[in-house]
Amino acid sequence: MQQSTLVRLKENFELKKPIMVVGLPGVGLVGKLVAEHLIDELKAEKIMEVYSPHFPPQVLINKDCTVRPVSNMIYHGKANGNDILFLVGDHQSTTSQGHYELCSLYLDIAEEFEVPRIYTLGGYPTGKLSSDETVMGVANDTGLIEEIKKYGVEFRESEPSGGIVGASGLLVAFSRMRGIDAACLMGMTPGYLMDPKSAQFLLKVLCKIFGIEVNTDSLAKKAEEMESILEKLKEKEEQQTFQEVKPTDEDLRYIG
Amino acid sequence: MQQSTLVRLKENFELKKPIMVVGLPGVGLVGKLVAEHLIDELKAEKIMEVYSPHFPPQVLINKDCTVRPVSNMIYHGKANGNDILFLVGDHQSTTSQGHYELCSLYLDIAEEFEVPRIYTLGGYPTGKLSSDETVMGVANDTGLIEEIKKYGVEFRESEPSGGIVGASGLLVAFSRMRGIDAACLMGMTPGYLMDPKSAQFLLKVLCKIFGIEVNTDSLAKKAEEMESILEKLKEKEEQQTFQEVKPTDEDLRYIG
Amino acid sequence: MQQSTLVRLKENFELKKPIMVVGLPGVGLVGKLVAEHLIDELKAEKIMEVYSPHFPPQVLINKDCTVRPVSNMIYHGKANGNDILFLVGDHQSTTSQGHYELCSLYLDIAEEFEVPRIYTLGGYPTGKLSSDETVMGVANDTGLIEEIKKYGVEFRESEPSGGIVGASGLLVAFSRMRGIDAACLMGMTPGYLMDPKSAQFLLKVLCKIFGIEVNTDSLAKKAEEMESILEKLKEKEEQQTFQEVKPTDEDLRYIG
Amino acid sequence: MQQSTLVRLKENFELKKPIMVVGLPGVGLVGKLVAEHLIDELKAEKIMEVYSPHFPPQVLINKDCTVRPVSNMIYHGKANGNDILFLVGDHQSTTSQGHYELCSLYLDIAEEFEVPRIYTLGGYPTGKLSSDETVMGVANDTGLIEEIKKYGVEFRESEPSGGIVGASGLLVAFSRMRGIDAACLMGMTPGYLMDPKSAQFLLKVLCKIFGIEVNTDSLAKKAEEMESILEKLKEKEEQQTFQEVKPTDEDLRYIG
Repeated sequence: MQQSTLVRLKENFELKKPIMVVGLPGVGLVGKLVAEHLIDELKAEKIMEVYSPHFPPQVLINKDCTVRPVSNMIYHGKANGNDILFLVGDHQSTTSQGHYELCSLYLDIAEEFEVPRIYTLGGYPTGKLSSDETVMGVANDTGLIEEIKKYGVEFRESEPSGGIVGASGLLVAFSRMRGIDAACLMGMTPGYLMDPKSAQFLLKVLCKIFGIEVNTDSLAKKAEEMESILEKLKEKEEQQTFQEVKPTDEDLRYIG
Repeated sequence: MQQSTLVRLKENFELKKPIMVVGLPGVGLVGKLVAEHLIDELKAEKIMEVYSPHFPPQVLINKDCTVRPVSNMIYHGKANGNDILFLVGDHQSTTSQGHYELCSLYLDIAEEFEVPRIYTLGGYPTGKLSSDETVMGVANDTGLIEEIKKYGVEFRESEPSGGIVGASGLLVAFSRMRGIDAACLMGMTPGYLMDPKSAQFLLKVLCKIFGIEVNTDSLAKKAEEMESILEKLKEKEEQQTFQEVKPTDEDLRYIG
Repeated sequence: MQQSTLVRLKENFELKKPIMVVGLPGVGLVGKLVAEHLIDELKAEKIMEVYSPHFPPQVLINKDCTVRPVSNMIYHGKANGNDILFLVGDHQSTTSQGHYELCSLYLDIAEEFEVPRIYTLGGYPTGKLSSDETVMGVANDTGLIEEIKKYGVEFRESEPSGGIVGASGLLVAFSRMRGIDAACLMGMTPGYLMDPKSAQFLLKVLCKIFGIEVNTDSLAKKAEEMESILEKLKEKEEQQTFQEVKPTDEDLRYIG
Repeated sequence: MQQSTLVRLKENFELKKPIMVVGLPGVGLVGKLVAEHLIDELKAEKIMEVYSPHFPPQVLINKDCTVRPVSNMIYHGKANGNDILFLVGDHQSTTSQGHYELCSLYLDIAEEFEVPRIYTLGGYPTGKLSSDETVMGVANDTGLIEEIKKYGVEFRESEPSGGIVGASGLLVAFSRMRGIDAACLMGMTPGYLMDPKSAQFLLKVLCKIFGIEVNTDSLAKKAEEMESILEKLKEKEEQQTFQEVKPTDEDLRYIG
C-alpha cells in the first residue's frame, strides 16, 4: 500500500445530496466527540473505510482481542429526513503530504455523492482552563458566513490568527474549488484535555443547524468526569500561580 | 531502487499451503530469536530476499569481511510434514510509509503461496525486570482466538491498550482483507534488552501449535547469559530504588 | 493532491518576454516585502496559484473569516512598458524534495512565457543589528554579473560562503540549464526580524534596473515601526553586552 | 525535479572497461580528498553531473559569484593506460530513500560502461586523536579480498562492526547483484575533522593498486595544516583529561 486506499463496505445505495460532517481527532477531541455522538444517536451506518500509509504504522485492539488497522471511516445517517455523511477516524495523517492526499480523496467522495455542504468540526485552543460556550467559525463563502451567524456561530475578523492546521481547515479551503460550500465550526477549549463540555456546546449549534434534537446524556456524563479533573487542575493553578500547570498521568488517560 | 524489491533465490518449487511465521526485530528481539531458532533447528532454506529504500541506508559486514545490504528474508522449512515460510530480517522499515508498503508486499507473497494462516511473533513490554511465562495474543478472527487459547495463549480484553506498532500488527490486521487467518503471539519481556528467556516461552507455545519438538540448547545458553545481566540489573534496582535503572554500555552490547 | 498543482486564473493573455521577479518568504522577509510592494504599486494582477503537498497542511484566515490554502502565486504587472511576472507566496516548501519540485514547476512556467531573465530577491543575514545599505548579488552568468554591478549591486568573491538555501538559490542555478539568465539580489539584514528598511534599499536597486520610480511610503512606514523596535533592541544590547539578544514576544508579532 | 537527474556533458566517447573510484563526502572527508586529489593529478575530465531532490535544497557559490546546484559528478581519467571513472560530489543524499535511489543510478552508469570493479573510498572513525597508517577493507567477494590484501589493506573479522552507512557501503553490496566486483577501502581517522593525513595513507594504497605514482604535495600541505590543529587538540586533551574535547569554531572552518 503506497497510496491511501478506499474500501467501500456497501455498494449501490442512494443518497440525496448529503451534508458531510467531519469530526477527525484534533484539539480537545471536540470535533471527534461531536461526530461520534451523532453517529451513535442517529444510528448511522459505516459505509466506507480509508487506510493510508500516512497513518501511524500501527493496529488498534478491539475489546475481544481482534485487531483493526488505524483508519478513517465514513458513516451514513439521517437527520430530519436529510442524508448526512460522517467522516471520523482514529488519526489524522502523520505527514504534510498525507494531509493533502487524504483531503483530496475525501473531496472526491464528496463530489461523487454531490455533497452540497461540508461542516468540519474542531476545537479552538484558548490556553485557559475556564469553559466558554462560544462556537467560532470560518467558511469558504461569505454568504454561508451570514447564514451560519444566525445559529449563534461567532466569526471574528482574521481569527484564528494562526490559521487552521489539518483536515478541518484544508477541507474547507479546497472544497471551494470543487464548488462545495464549507464551514469549520470550532468549540472553545483549553486544549489540554479531551473536552466533552465544549463538544456539548458545539453539538447544540450543529443540532440547531440540522433542525434536530438528540439525547446528550453520554456526552454530559463524560463532561462531568472531565469537570472534576478540571476542578483539580484549577485548584492546582491557584496554588501554583507561577508554575506551569500540566495534567497528571492519571488525567492523561482520559485523552484519546 | 525507489521501491522495495523482491529477489527470488529459487524458482518453481512447490509449497502445500504453507503457514507463515514472522519474526522481525522488535521489543526484546523475542520474535526474531524464536523465528531464527526455528530456521536453524528445522534447517530451513532461504528462498527470497527483500531490499527496500525504507531500510537504513547501510550495509552489514559478514565474518569474512564481505558485505550484505540490510534485508528481510523468507526461508522455507518443514515442521511435522507441513510447509512453513519464515519471514525474518535485519531491520523493519524506518518510515511509516515503508511499513505499509512492505506489509503489502509480504501479503502479496502470502497470497501467491496460498498461505492459510500467519503467526507474527513479538515481545510485549512489561517495563518490569521480572520474568513472566505468559504468552499474549491478538488475532484477526474470533474463531482463531478460541483455537489458540487451547495452546495456553492468553487473550486480555483490549490489550495491548497502546495497540501494536510495526509489521507484527499490520500483517495481522491487513491479512483479514486477503482472507488469511492471522494471530500475533507475544512473549512478555522487560523490553530493555534482548530476551532469549521470553523467546523460550514463546517457542514452547509455537512448537505446541505446530505439534513439534525442537532442541532449545542454544536459546537456553543465550538466556543464561542474559540472566546474569538481569541479575546485576536487579541488584542495582534494589540499591537504587528511586533512581532510573538503565543497562550499562557493556550490557547493551548484547542487544541486537 | 500528491503533486504540486498549478491553477491558471486567466487564459489566453499575451506577454512579451516578461522578466520574472521572485519574492518568496526568507531571511528578514526582504524579498517578499519588495515583491509585494511592487505588486501593489504596479497594480499587478494575479494570474496563477500554486498549491502543493510540500506546503504546510494549513489554511490561512482572511479578514472576512473566509479561508484560503497556503499557496504561491504569480502576478502580472507592467514596468516601463515591459511585462513582469511576480512570484510570491505564503510559504516556501517544507521539504527538500518539494523545493526541487516547485522550482522545476516555476521554471516550466518561465520557459512557457519565454522569460529571458529572473531576479530572485532575498535577505543576506549579517547577524548584526546595524543597518547596511549594501545589496549583494550572485548570478548564473558572468556577463550578467558585469551588467548588474553597474546598478550598485556588490559581488564578493565566493560569498555567501554558506551558499543560498531555498528557492532564491535553486531558481538561479537551475535556470542556467534552461538558457535563462538569472541573478539573486540580497538586501543586508540582521536576520532576526522582518526588515522593511533593507527592503527599501533592495527596492531602490531593482527600480534602477527596471528604470522606474515607485512610491515607497508604505514600506517607509513599516520601516519606521521596525526602527523603533530595533532601537529598543540596540539599547538592550548595550546594557547586556555579554548576554544573547533576543526579540521579545511582542516584537515577534511583527514577523511574517 | 522529482527524481535524480543525470546530465551527460559529453557524448559518444569510448571507455575500455573503466575502474570506478568513488570518493563522496564522509567520515573525515578521507574518500573525497583522495578522489579529488587523483582527479587533479590525473587531469581527469568531468563527463557527467547528477542533480537530485535528495540533496540539500541549496546552491553553492563559485569564486566569481556564479552559482551551481549541489551535485555529484563523474570524471574520466587515465592511470597507467587504464580508464578510470571518478564519482565525487558536494553532498551525499540527505534521505534514506535517496541513498538507495542514487546508488541504483550510479550502478546503472557502471553497467552502461561495463565497469568490472568499483573501489569506494572512505574513513574509518577511530575516535582517537592519534594517527594510524592502517587502511581497512571490506569487499563483495572473497577472491577480491585475497587480491587486495597483497596491497597492504587490512581485513578484520566482522569489522566495521556497526556496518557502513551511505553510498560507500551500498555501492559495494549492491554491485554484487550486477556482477561487479567491489571493495570499500577506509583510512583510519579520528573522525572529528577533515583528515588529509589519513587520505595520504589511503592514496598510497590506491596508487599501489593502480601501479601509478602521483605528486602528493598539495595533500601533504593540507596534512601539515591539520597536524598543527591536531597538536593543539592533543595539548588540550592532556590538560583536560576528564573533559570532552571538541574542536573550536576556528578549527571547524577547516571541515568541508
